[in-house]
Amino acid sequence: MKTVAVKNIERADKATIEALGNLGVATVHEAQGRTGLLKPYMRPIYPHARIGGSAITILAQPGDNWMVHVAIELCQEGDILVVACTTENTDGMFGDLLATSAMARGVKGLVVDAGVRDIMDLENMGFPVWSRAVSAKGTVKNTLGCVNVPVVCAGEYINPGDIVVADDDGVVIVPRNKASEVLASAQAREANEDTKRSKLADGILGLDMYNMRPGLKEAGLVYLDSLDELDE
Amino acid sequence: MKTVAVKNIERADKATIEALGNLGVATVHEAQGRTGLLKPYMRPIYPHARIGGSAITILAQPGDNWMVHVAIELCQEGDILVVACTTENTDGMFGDLLATSAMARGVKGLVVDAGVRDIMDLENMGFPVWSRAVSAKGTVKNTLGCVNVPVVCAGEYINPGDIVVADDDGVVIVPRNKASEVLASAQAREANEDTKRSKLADGILGLDMYNMRPGLKEAGLVYLDSLDELDE
Amino acid sequence: MKTVAVKNIERADKATIEALGNLGVATVHEAQGRTGLLKPYMRPIYPHARIGGSAITILAQPGDNWMVHVAIELCQEGDILVVACTTENTDGMFGDLLATSAMARGVKGLVVDAGVRDIMDLENMGFPVWSRAVSAKGTVKNTLGCVNVPVVCAGEYINPGDIVVADDDGVVIVPRNKASEVLASAQAREANEDTKRSKLADGILGLDMYNMRPGLKEAGLVYLDSLDELDE
Amino acid sequence: MKTVAVKNIERADKATIEALGNLGVATVHEAQGRTGLLKPYMRPIYPHARIGGSAITILAQPGDNWMVHVAIELCQEGDILVVACTTENTDGMFGDLLATSAMARGVKGLVVDAGVRDIMDLENMGFPVWSRAVSAKGTVKNTLGCVNVPVVCAGEYINPGDIVVADDDGVVIVPRNKASEVLASAQAREANEDTKRSKLADGILGLDMYNMRPGLKEAGLVYLDSLDELDE
Amino acid sequence: MKTVAVKNIERADKATIEALGNLGVATVHEAQGRTGLLKPYMRPIYPHARIGGSAITILAQPGDNWMVHVAIELCQEGDILVVACTTENTDGMFGDLLATSAMARGVKGLVVDAGVRDIMDLENMGFPVWSRAVSAKGTVKNTLGCVNVPVVCAGEYINPGDIVVADDDGVVIVPRNKASEVLASAQAREANEDTKRSKLADGILGLDMYNMRPGLKEAGLVYLDSLDELDE
Amino acid sequence: MKTVAVKNIERADKATIEALGNLGVATVHEAQGRTGLLKPYMRPIYPHARIGGSAITILAQPGDNWMVHVAIELCQEGDILVVACTTENTDGMFGDLLATSAMARGVKGLVVDAGVRDIMDLENMGFPVWSRAVSAKGTVKNTLGCVNVPVVCAGEYINPGDIVVADDDGVVIVPRNKASEVLASAQAREANEDTKRSKLADGILGLDMYNMRPGLKEAGLVYLDSLDELDE
Repeated sequence: MKTVAVKNIERADKATIEALGNLGVATVHEAQGRTGLLKPYMRPIYPHARIGGSAITILAQPGDNWMVHVAIELCQEGDILVVACTTENTDGMFGDLLATSAMARGVKGLVVDAGVRDIMDLENMGFPVWSRAVSAKGTVKNTLGCVNVPVVCAGEYINPGDIVVADDDGVVIVPRNKASEVLASAQAREANEDTKRSKLADGILGLDMYNMRPGLKEAGLVYLDSLDELDE
Repeated sequence: MKTVAVKNIERADKATIEALGNLGVATVHEAQGRTGLLKPYMRPIYPHARIGGSAITILAQPGDNWMVHVAIELCQEGDILVVACTTENTDGMFGDLLATSAMARGVKGLVVDAGVRDIMDLENMGFPVWSRAVSAKGTVKNTLGCVNVPVVCAGEYINPGDIVVADDDGVVIVPRNKASEVLASAQAREANEDTKRSKLADGILGLDMYNMRPGLKEAGLVYLDSLDELDE
Repeated sequence: MKTVAVKNIERADKATIEALGNLGVATVHEAQGRTGLLKPYMRPIYPHARIGGSAITILAQPGDNWMVHVAIELCQEGDILVVACTTENTDGMFGDLLATSAMARGVKGLVVDAGVRDIMDLENMGFPVWSRAVSAKGTVKNTLGCVNVPVVCAGEYINPGDIVVADDDGVVIVPRNKASEVLASAQAREANEDTKRSKLADGILGLDMYNMRPGLKEAGLVYLDSLDELDE
Repeated sequence: MKTVAVKNIERADKATIEALGNLGVATVHEAQGRTGLLKPYMRPIYPHARIGGSAITILAQPGDNWMVHVAIELCQEGDILVVACTTENTDGMFGDLLATSAMARGVKGLVVDAGVRDIMDLENMGFPVWSRAVSAKGTVKNTLGCVNVPVVCAGEYINPGDIVVADDDGVVIVPRNKASEVLASAQAREANEDTKRSKLADGILGLDMYNMRPGLKEAGLVYLDSLDELDE
Repeated sequence: MKTVAVKNIERADKATIEALGNLGVATVHEAQGRTGLLKPYMRPIYPHARIGGSAITILAQPGDNWMVHVAIELCQEGDILVVACTTENTDGMFGDLLATSAMARGVKGLVVDAGVRDIMDLENMGFPVWSRAVSAKGTVKNTLGCVNVPVVCAGEYINPGDIVVADDDGVVIVPRNKASEVLASAQAREANEDTKRSKLADGILGLDMYNMRPGLKEAGLVYLDSLDELDE
Repeated sequence: MKTVAVKNIERADKATIEALGNLGVATVHEAQGRTGLLKPYMRPIYPHARIGGSAITILAQPGDNWMVHVAIELCQEGDILVVACTTENTDGMFGDLLATSAMARGVKGLVVDAGVRDIMDLENMGFPVWSRAVSAKGTVKNTLGCVNVPVVCAGEYINPGDIVVADDDGVVIVPRNKASEVLASAQAREANEDTKRSKLADGILGLDMYNMRPGLKEAGLVYLDSLDELDE
């Protein structure tokens, strides 16, 4: 592994990032063809945060958070730290001191495929984190990794500068060069969902709204009046 | 697998279901001889919901929520959707649109041995869910399953119309034809627990209240004054 | 296994225990050289509790909470029940009745490498629990274990009377005979962290505050201006 | 839970059972509409065993193998012991002594949703086991369960007398009253597979043999000449 | 997700691939700077196979092996099928019929982040597989995925045409355009290891051969004569 | 954590260790009151090895095998390396070079609560390993741990010099100062088992041999003639 830190990365347009963040994970994930989701073991440390930002990617070694310090210097207002690890690890790579430092640079949150600690402090500070684990286990600063190289984090390939959207549903990544396209698609989808939601609230069935009955019949679904018919 | 949807199922008496729901999972589980619990990986998406209802059972394919749409048409006021899957799967089979539709039909909640999404919306709507995972992963509508057949969901065999009780402790199933019997037993148990609780709060030990000392002695428990005696 | 219950154990000084509890898990863990943490699967049943107390250790059999009853008699004001199990088990070994009894004796909380139930009640009572699982599964009282012997709980070796500190970050154990030493170290650390926190909040980088740049250079970290340089 | 042992169960025809056993898990699973499989965590303790037999079902308590002893008395030549547990447990409920006893009664193997031990001895004896775990952990004989009642084992609902087929691929259950029907279907399937296998070995593609090309086209699959076209 | 199948991919030089395959996973992984490993849950279905080949990448949907059929047409002599899945899934996406078809085209093996079945047949055929699970669960052919696009499989980003090396230690990926460079490095490493192996076999310690003593001393390692000194 | 390496440890008598090793894990575990077992996730890398030896304990950092090198110097003929890790880690801390070195010093095997690699070589060398994982992932030599201090490895507290017994059933630890006592008990148990085995092979039931019928009746077991009686 070449141990490098890339100083300058391209970021998407701020308004686009903000808009994607507001739309939330499920809508954005659908809008880009059901791609980009991190695995569902990535959970928020407190409920009801929703953010969007540019990924500063970090490849860390297990039990070692040295590269997080390197990464913070390279952050700008609106960035989100994204930590991958060379192997599965739950150590507490990030706590309230690093969060203080990150917030001082305008970082909006952290996505870490490892552990995090001081979570009550982080909640009080309003610094949201999505992680694999909560663990107070301290980490060393002995082995190099990388900053701002492409990484695989929680099963998803992420380039530095890609857009990170995170909320209670998890984390989704939008490739930087598709941000506008995905935003347009997501906004259209949301508008469309409002109409659907109204109809469903009025009691119209999905079966009818989506015209599913012919397909179900063709696929061979059989309606029985009662369970007794099943065993006949 | 015969791919069927059963339209009419028998349900237990509404008052009985309501009463079981109010008693909660632990009490009902004990009252029916410590049976009926779903595995503990089934967790609520938000704290402090407690519901009881009749199971509308769904057998879904991995990554496919087609049968949930079929099931909603068959729901009545007071029902609870119970989704089993043919294999282990965490995809987001249910979100705010399906919840809107389900609530329009009086459905009280969802138990899904897979994933759920839009959980902040669901919490805001007051639609509780117990699931294996939270995941925004979208699902297709391509492969049939079943509605209202017996299923194994999270390790428990469930018939359509069985009573589902769910709260912070998890989910328990009461067979429909035992609902009254279990309710009576649960109410007796609860009354009995109030007495016990008072005694314990007054400092009476469980050892004495349950008369455990003779049994412990017979089983061979030895009291030592200090740990030093252990190594002698 | 000798099935014994040890009646008298030594405890650390109350003020020391209280002070350690207030400092929290991450600080105490660091202060004793990054030792003593239970595995991160041990999670609190509700957020924002923070306690310190003396361990009353219990070795239970799977699906059997007999020894918890034995242990409660041996508790004093300020103790914390610590339940290990002879094998991995998630059954609900503890609920609101046992909590009522424990609270009547001044017990401050529970750490259990198994399951717990009635968690809404426990939250309402203000009785915090750190556990491997939430499960309503009832337990029997048929097979002996031990009370107040050394146990391995969630990967950590614990002696009766050791200090337990638990909060949102998990659980850490301080050996009884090192309590004062660890407290001094933890207090020094916390004071030191306040200074660091101020500097970081002012925008000083960890890279500079900890003087990491020479070490990074020596280890071979290469800064690139852009990602394009990586592939050259 | 009523703690009962049912002495007499119905079994399928011996020749049918034998034939199902020879066909193996994958073929039988397909032949009955892709149902009946136990979860894939159930693995054989040594490779290359393949058996079929009638299920003697056992519901055991965690860490307790008392009911296995009760079950062996009720076994006949050609039976297979099927152990479910009231909660997830890996203790070694079965070893060489029980296997000796079971073999003396003609039992052909064991399926246990818990642990097994003495596996080198079992392999030498030719007594195959499919289990969740290998563990030497000893078990007690203190708490009742059931024998020959319906159980959920590794996610599958099993009635006593159902046919168990197990091999390197895992374990599948055939409901007793469908044994002949499934056998006929499985034999037809296997004959059909021989023809397919020859064609595929000759280089005919599944795409053509199954006539998949029109369906792929209709579903929207696009062939690109090279990856470069993807990004255009 | 654009559902495409890419017909033509670039492959590395055959001799290089063969040589990398012979060197094995650990050596190749080290030779490329400790990168490229799939997660360790990927295990061979039988011991002692060792292969190298060019990746034909497949992105499959859970429970659906349609794209495997599409992929086989695009394989050449010496290729290895690499199946990623849009979500975690253990279904048996591959069995003896697909293996027959794949072998007819010269495919050397399969790496699948899902399940595989007919493993006894596959072993008899000499068709090695590395998988997440063994499962007889049948799959449908209903939902499109992709063939020969970049995928993340078992935590590793893989391009079509990358070199796959697999043996008892797991699976490692070598980027196609680094194949020669990695081979040279791996061969040098292996030569070097032979020398080391001889020295170690002669009783020379790693401490001395790698000159570790100064570093250990500098890092602060303290040698004690006996454990008693630790507690002094 | 004090980073120390203890040079001299006490070992049990060689003949006793050898005899314990021959008796195997299940027998030794039972003979010492069902204690001492490592968790069942510790599995052998190849079948049918059985060893006994004195534990050289190592506490390693995640992804770092520096202390293994330190430990090998402190080994004697008949020792077994026992590696614990400060957090859960699967990296390949040990391979054929370290095995060569260890064998040169007479080490009989390895127990590692992390990963191992080169397992085909290790099998060919006849160097058995019990591990949490197989992984080719390379490790660094950057952070100190300890050698020959008490550790918790796979859930069990182990002192240097304790006896390790390992076979296909897993790993069990015998405290050094109880070695003779446990050996006597294990030999008595084995003799006793031979008698039992003969009786069981002759068709005598465990129910009768252990006189279980009165206990079952007292506990309330009810025998039914057929399953129909259950629902009456």
